[in-house]
Amino acid sequence: MSVYLNGSYVPRESATVSVLDRGFVFGDGIYEVWRVVRGGLFEHERHVRRLVEGAEALRLTRPAELSRRALETMAARLLADAGLQAGEATFYVQVTRGVAPRTHHFPPEGTPPTVFAMVNPFSPPEALRVSGATAVTVPDVRWHRCNVKTIQLLPNAMAKQQAQERGALEAVLVRDGVVTEGSHTNVMAVVGGTIRTHPANELILAGVTRAVVLELAAELGIAVEERPVTLDELWGVDELFLTGTTTDVMPLVRVDDRVIGGGTSGPVSRALIAALHARMDATPVSKIE
Amino acid sequence: MSVYLNGSYVPRESATVSVLDRGFVFGDGIYEVWRVVRGGLFEHERHVRRLVEGAEALRLTRPAELSRRALETMAARLLADAGLQAGEATFYVQVTRGVAPRTHHFPPEGTPPTVFAMVNPFSPPEALRVSGATAVTVPDVRWHRCNVKTIQLLPNAMAKQQAQERGALEAVLVRDGVVTEGSHTNVMAVVGGTIRTHPANELILAGVTRAVVLELAAELGIAVEERPVTLDELWGVDELFLTGTTTDVMPLVRVDDRVIGGGTSGPVSRALIAALHARMDATPVSKIE
Repeated sequence: MSVYLNGSYVPRESATVSVLDRGFVFGDGIYEVWRVVRGGLFEHERHVRRLVEGAEALRLTRPAELSRRALETMAARLLADAGLQAGEATFYVQVTRGVAPRTHHFPPEGTPPTVFAMVNPFSPPEALRVSGATAVTVPDVRWHRCNVKTIQLLPNAMAKQQAQERGALEAVLVRDGVVTEGSHTNVMAVVGGTIRTHPANELILAGVTRAVVLELAAELGIAVEERPVTLDELWGVDELFLTGTTTDVMPLVRVDDRVIGGGTSGPVSRALIAALHARMDATPVSKIE
Repeated sequence: MSVYLNGSYVPRESATVSVLDRGFVFGDGIYEVWRVVRGGLFEHERHVRRLVEGAEALRLTRPAELSRRALETMAARLLADAGLQAGEATFYVQVTRGVAPRTHHFPPEGTPPTVFAMVNPFSPPEALRVSGATAVTVPDVRWHRCNVKTIQLLPNAMAKQQAQERGALEAVLVRDGVVTEGSHTNVMAVVGGTIRTHPANELILAGVTRAVVLELAAELGIAVEERPVTLDELWGVDELFLTGTTTDVMPLVRVDDRVIGGGTSGPVSRALIAALHARMDATPVSKIE
């Protein structure tokens, strides 16, 4: 399977970057993950915008690859090469500040950013969506720029590992007594018929699926309040679910071994799952020739 | 010039890691920087200990390279190759969780960590030490595991860049109204004859030079209080200085364009500079055959 690296398509095994790439020594970069639906990039515009905004936030030199069209072309080539034009897949793009002698301050102007992209096959966890998943709470120790989708992901990785070791799907991060988000998902609760979720500030990564789900909720006439759920409130919510690019809408029925809601997926979660899948099926996904 | 990479000594230009190295995609790794004095590793024991503790904190598989002896051998070979046995240099070692398909949770057991090491020539900034340096204050937005020397360094890089653009040597990080540390240094103040510095908790990286300087202060009969300086206090301190592996002791004479102390290096700073350099000269540095 090929990957894209700095203008070339190369076998994944031989795709390498310098040990002096600032991605490797500083975690100095951003990334994005798209859901590929029938060969198209779902919510392409939103993902491109977030990638561009991330580059601006980090003051990365914006590479030519960060255009809607260039990314479509790149994804099409990678998907064709992998034989993934028809099924489910993900498209991953990472941009770092490039290769330079190791100094904390930025490298000289003109240092080209590193651009890496790959596709991977993907199987949506539909069975788990029916039964509902479990989560564990983990202290949110991340920095205060979680709104930028950077590769500063060590705390996320550590939290996800904790969840996995405790037999759970996801870690629900808790900072100052409130639920912020998951290790790679957003978290939403249903309280008295209203969807509650952490506001899109610097303490969470405002997911593309989060935005889509809030749109779908509005269409379905479900009230939304962007106000965090406290840890105290968590145990009494009617429904709890995750949203994410590879997670879609995933009901959580147990957290820290305590039953949430009725211990099964609730009506709001189910309605949103159906609405999201309908949008995925119906949306004219970004066309790739 | 050669670098060390996973058991081999290779030219720096051809030293590469997989795009799937967890250092590159997650910033999932640790590093260490030694001061090389006349071919020896200054405060070698402390640096090795911190590296080993970092590996434990991140639950990295500890590679064979993380022994005192193996690191000495590695440094000796790199220094000889670079012709740096006699002069000033730095020795850099980085360990990541290795190469694996990209998932937040840890890769399968047995995945070998990536080990990268290099040496670089170094010129201590002696002229600046005489005149004193300047700094700017920058909000400390980092995560809450600053006590582990990880490659999650994007906020440090952004802060250092801000300092450089404002004509300053270093960024003094401020969180909740108190000075934590610099972007790659610790910060100490002299207030009424007592050295004040942030306690070694999860909000700072407890520098090796910080520890050495606090020892030297005790030897010199200077009182030390590990209590942070508030931003309000900062403007009225008698002396302010940075400590670090490549910084040694560096007086700060202006912060945010405001004069600190008398605008020149103070007696405590000067005494500590002399004591640190004496220790560097006198210490039986780690012997490398």
